[in-house]
Amino acid sequence: MGRLLRIIIVFICSFSLLISVNTEEVQSSSFFNNGIQQLLRFDKNKGEFRILQVADMHYANGKKTACEDVLPEQYAHCSDLNTTFFIERMIQVEKPDLIVFTGDNIYGADTTDPVASMNAAFAPAVSSNIPWAAVLGNHDQESTLSREGLMKHIVGMNHTLSQLNPFGVDVIDGFGNYNLEVHGTEGSSSGNESILNLYFLDSGDYSTVPAIPGYGWIKPSQQFWFQQTSMKLQKKSKAPGLAYFHIPLPEYSSFDSSNYTGVKQEGISSASVNSGFFTTLVGAGDVKAVFVGHDHINDFCGELTGVYLCYAGGFGYHAYGKAGWSRRSRVVVASLEKKSNGSWGAVEFIKTYKRLDDGNLTVIDDQVLWTKTPSMKW
Amino acid sequence: MGRLLRIIIVFICSFSLLISVNTEEVQSSSFFNNGIQQLLRFDKNKGEFRILQVADMHYANGKKTACEDVLPEQYAHCSDLNTTFFIERMIQVEKPDLIVFTGDNIYGADTTDPVASMNAAFAPAVSSNIPWAAVLGNHDQESTLSREGLMKHIVGMNHTLSQLNPFGVDVIDGFGNYNLEVHGTEGSSSGNESILNLYFLDSGDYSTVPAIPGYGWIKPSQQFWFQQTSMKLQKKSKAPGLAYFHIPLPEYSSFDSSNYTGVKQEGISSASVNSGFFTTLVGAGDVKAVFVGHDHINDFCGELTGVYLCYAGGFGYHAYGKAGWSRRSRVVVASLEKKSNGSWGAVEFIKTYKRLDDGNLTVIDDQVLWTKTPSMKW
Repeated sequence: MGRLLRIIIVFICSFSLLISVNTEEVQSSSFFNNGIQQLLRFDKNKGEFRILQVADMHYANGKKTACEDVLPEQYAHCSDLNTTFFIERMIQVEKPDLIVFTGDNIYGADTTDPVASMNAAFAPAVSSNIPWAAVLGNHDQESTLSREGLMKHIVGMNHTLSQLNPFGVDVIDGFGNYNLEVHGTEGSSSGNESILNLYFLDSGDYSTVPAIPGYGWIKPSQQFWFQQTSMKLQKKSKAPGLAYFHIPLPEYSSFDSSNYTGVKQEGISSASVNSGFFTTLVGAGDVKAVFVGHDHINDFCGELTGVYLCYAGGFGYHAYGKAGWSRRSRVVVASLEKKSNGSWGAVEFIKTYKRLDDGNLTVIDDQVLWTKTPSMKW
Repeated sequence: MGRLLRIIIVFICSFSLLISVNTEEVQSSSFFNNGIQQLLRFDKNKGEFRILQVADMHYANGKKTACEDVLPEQYAHCSDLNTTFFIERMIQVEKPDLIVFTGDNIYGADTTDPVASMNAAFAPAVSSNIPWAAVLGNHDQESTLSREGLMKHIVGMNHTLSQLNPFGVDVIDGFGNYNLEVHGTEGSSSGNESILNLYFLDSGDYSTVPAIPGYGWIKPSQQFWFQQTSMKLQKKSKAPGLAYFHIPLPEYSSFDSSNYTGVKQEGISSASVNSGFFTTLVGAGDVKAVFVGHDHINDFCGELTGVYLCYAGGFGYHAYGKAGWSRRSRVVVASLEKKSNGSWGAVEFIKTYKRLDDGNLTVIDDQVLWTKTPSMKW
């Protein structure tokens, strides 16, 4: 009887231990991505990594939510569902390796239930099984969920690689500052290292400083995190980087029509002050292009001091736009160099173009953002 | 004999302990300031704290080093010693509570021995027994000592409160980033808290980023430290702050002659990019005025978004200047409010003026930088 009791105790203890180990495993992997650790890597057939940017969906209540700034004949049948249908078609035609949502994903002010709106807005990405990442704009939190609450919901969704904030960083402003590494093709020499660095930042909503009215900006804590992260990554390999956030930097105002591709049809709605992130980006050296939304009818992309500053152009139908000027999306394609032995090497060039939401998803404004060899002929 | 041995052992042990305690005490206080812990506090007779700013001494080899840009009749007898004599007179007339050297303390390119130059340049401060603080400019390191080496020498000098970098901060750009607290008058209710916060930053020398030529700038790591420090200090008390560094911020270019006091006789030689420190300063909220050097023949001080941006004007004789336009120095006076019971309260106002190196050390451009009560009549 005494021996049986000992056996029972040992059995119970072993079982408890087994359960606790299993729970830890699930918690650990779910930290990365809902139980499925999705590592970003270049496609080994094409030697490419393809990013679809969706800017300013302004999603509200789906079918019930009318469109803004479309042609008179479009109003009757136009709703948030047109936004959904546009994403679905873009995913189908581009088959991206990553979908990036650069804020104003939902239009909080017109949203009955922000969670339902987010679920509907991101649904095409979730159901595509393609990894996706999101940051916040200035309109997302205008309903009942705070910015923290919004990002917490997002990071819990399926197939997202979004993060609330970087692991191990105690003090950082905003919610949704993180980076993602894109590894080389499976089995290649760069299969276990990042050869393309992606940075996502929370550019805030509105200034909380009375003396500085207007939009938010990227704060010193975020810039310090970015700079430290970029430095650590560059110690491992000289990979190019791309940065995604919502509100344009003041330096977007540096262009005139002679030195960009695309259009500038409205003012640059950056913060009213310069918080120095462009300087920090140029100083860090790896980021070759910045992608924002916010100004829906600007879609240009121009180079300044070696860094391209690009708009995506407005994507969503329940967002201001310009009737007759198609909603649009920006695609970025990073391509690897093919070595003489047929294997894939480092990133050789990064290009971008946009697609219009017309019958053909017309491609426009194809341009090269970066080449590994500066003198590379295109 | 056994008892005597025990007495001897006890005596030796006690003596060793006494020595070790004394050593610790000396080490502890010498951490603060060479064995003399100099706490900055407001003067209890006048209820004032007075700061003398010395910008761009450009000290080289003392008597052997000729002056620049003085009147023809002055050249024959003019040398670095004129700079020394000017400081001595300024100390005598102002009796400052703190002397701040805002960089280009020595002119490295013309210096035979940078340590000897620094010792000579700071000698009037050292021998005055008044606490002093220094930051570096862009010319200090042009001899055989690195910026780190220069600051290490400075922090070891007598009566200085300069620090190499903030204690407990692992990663920070530059050398000579620190803050000093000025406590209330001795024995008063604010005698143990900072009622005036002073920030000192290394604005660098030259850009190390090829795409950004020109002068250095205050980096994200420094801005993050400043912002965190300011936040911590403001949690304790709402004390006003002042910031001292060498290179002007790009926002110094925001003024025209209608909205500043003093003169602008040359361009604003800031970095060619905006690194956002002005935004960080305004966002932090406590800094009411910034004091720089670098542009010797600008001495203006103007307000922008609630923060005064001030030049000191060139102090040193072996520095470019303008013949016939006196070398000068900026004084800041913070004054406490007198309570109805006769005791001193918080800082009531902060004012500034300059003194010229003429026969009378003429006071010019007296102006108020901040008042505790915005509507306070002057």
